[in-house]
Amino acid sequence: MVKERFTAAELEKFTREIYEKVGLSGSDASHVARLMIAADLRGVDGHGIIRLPRYVRRIRAGGVNVRPNIRVVEDRLSTAVVDGDNGMGQLVMSRAAEAAIEKADRTGVAWVGARMSNHAGFGALYAEMPLARDMIGLYMAVASANHMPPWGGVEKVLGTNPLTVAIPAQEEPPVVLDMATTVVAYGKIKTHQLTGKPMPVGWMINRRGEPITDPNRSNEGFLLPIGGYKGSGLAIVIGMLAGLLNGALFGRECIDFNADDSSVTNTGHAIVALKVSHFCPVEQFKRQVDAAIREIRNSERMEGVDRIWLPGEKEYTCLLDRRANGIPMNPGLRRMLNDLAASLGTDLLPDK
Amino acid sequence: MVKERFTAAELEKFTREIYEKVGLSGSDASHVARLMIAADLRGVDGHGIIRLPRYVRRIRAGGVNVRPNIRVVEDRLSTAVVDGDNGMGQLVMSRAAEAAIEKADRTGVAWVGARMSNHAGFGALYAEMPLARDMIGLYMAVASANHMPPWGGVEKVLGTNPLTVAIPAQEEPPVVLDMATTVVAYGKIKTHQLTGKPMPVGWMINRRGEPITDPNRSNEGFLLPIGGYKGSGLAIVIGMLAGLLNGALFGRECIDFNADDSSVTNTGHAIVALKVSHFCPVEQFKRQVDAAIREIRNSERMEGVDRIWLPGEKEYTCLLDRRANGIPMNPGLRRMLNDLAASLGTDLLPDK
Repeated sequence: MVKERFTAAELEKFTREIYEKVGLSGSDASHVARLMIAADLRGVDGHGIIRLPRYVRRIRAGGVNVRPNIRVVEDRLSTAVVDGDNGMGQLVMSRAAEAAIEKADRTGVAWVGARMSNHAGFGALYAEMPLARDMIGLYMAVASANHMPPWGGVEKVLGTNPLTVAIPAQEEPPVVLDMATTVVAYGKIKTHQLTGKPMPVGWMINRRGEPITDPNRSNEGFLLPIGGYKGSGLAIVIGMLAGLLNGALFGRECIDFNADDSSVTNTGHAIVALKVSHFCPVEQFKRQVDAAIREIRNSERMEGVDRIWLPGEKEYTCLLDRRANGIPMNPGLRRMLNDLAASLGTDLLPDK
Repeated sequence: MVKERFTAAELEKFTREIYEKVGLSGSDASHVARLMIAADLRGVDGHGIIRLPRYVRRIRAGGVNVRPNIRVVEDRLSTAVVDGDNGMGQLVMSRAAEAAIEKADRTGVAWVGARMSNHAGFGALYAEMPLARDMIGLYMAVASANHMPPWGGVEKVLGTNPLTVAIPAQEEPPVVLDMATTVVAYGKIKTHQLTGKPMPVGWMINRRGEPITDPNRSNEGFLLPIGGYKGSGLAIVIGMLAGLLNGALFGRECIDFNADDSSVTNTGHAIVALKVSHFCPVEQFKRQVDAAIREIRNSERMEGVDRIWLPGEKEYTCLLDRRANGIPMNPGLRRMLNDLAASLGTDLLPDK
């Protein structure tokens, strides 16, 4: 299967036009398009343009407010809560990150929560926003569907609630850990469903605790947390920090945005910005991060392992490649996106 | 084997006298003793009085400063760095937690790092300190020995670098997640070494990636991170946040405090305090945490599972039992402790 490659600019224009058509303002449409294609550029395709049809479906079903009044409702010295007014998660989280960076610049650290938001795509994009200001970023979210029971349970009251940490380096790419609290995110299960390829033991279990390896039986079971009770506990505390603390939903109340296009999800997130210069000289820190990266990368490898990757390094390598050579797209996705554009009367993807 | 039970007061007195004898001030000796026995009270025996002989050995070898000048060296509005002057970790972290709580009370959130510290015992004790002020606490540390390679590697350049989150509830016990980034902490391996009991697959692997189940061959391999590359990545970012950012050691430079009694460990930690009332009314939040706890606890269980435990709930249940009925101690530990007291000329444990 030959994959055609598109430039980020081509995909951003395509995406922006569709968002404008379904009611977003020009600047909001541009912003969301840029963040979605930023995920494709980093090889995190599951949070990229592939999401466009589903996001549009939800907008057209009235599930998302296309002209939100996103505002800071609790504005303190080092903290804030952003009310997203049910706007696109990308817009809400960008606003929350801005607020966190501005506050952390004055006081050293800021913690900003968000409520009444929606699925915000690739979390690392928000955790990375403080990097340009020589700050460290942390991001947490309540996932937009529950795929996991608590440890010992069989009822899916928890999501894959992810955690992201971004740390600046000097010459090396930043360290960017972006992890679900489950062994795999649900997107990987979907990929196996499409191909029919068996799943490894350890990804999912059924209600009796037995492994599920047939991806077409995934609805009989649930995702496993990392480290057993530890990943389950991490999903719980992230749900409380990113959800409950900000007045957003957590637990059984969470709306499954795969199954329900119209209910308000009241998704919660949190972002922390931490100013390096309040702890030590910035260049000293970044050089130490470089040294730590190199020590880890160059440490002795297990036989058969070609390279030890730092968190976020694969995505960074992909970013360099795709910026230079374009973003590959399979024909099925291209057809689906062009069908969407045709139905809305916007420009199709350029011929290649 | 009959285990005798001692009251917390008895063990605190015993411990305090030993610390005073080896040079700590009366108030420092009391404080460290109280925090060590607090771990025993919670059933986290690996961080309790069992550590006393090793802590004392390190003090007598000159590896710890018994009269440290613990001071805040970077004092900003919402951040600080505490220099522990190579004092006991319990003293350094208590000071860091105090600073974080005081700052968060004014600005909503505070992030305080520590350097030139030492092993601080049970991390949840520090994350729990903000709870009494209706704050959430987070704690991270660079572990005091490297037991884990990065994912794909075989060289132990990483520790079990733990993460703790404590969240207040109203009627329920607080949610307190305290987790190493490895599947098990090294203490569990030591327990299996003592009993000779085989370890489950998934705890340790050897240099070829094969499971190690014989606890006496544990030195041929290393601990596995939770969720593979995820736990490895988490250990790396915690090492950078709790270590490098504060001028503390991380990576190959870390001193193995099991093997080396006299070198300065320059252990790093970080604590975050987050003021609930800056996000939402405290009682509303705590009642929502109660509701979430009950929803999770009462959700459907897997066959054969008696109870779904929330993070920290087992420790809380143990705390209530041991406060009322005393702390059980096996004869071997009692003998070891009495030998230590005899060698120092302090009072033995009371007869039972």
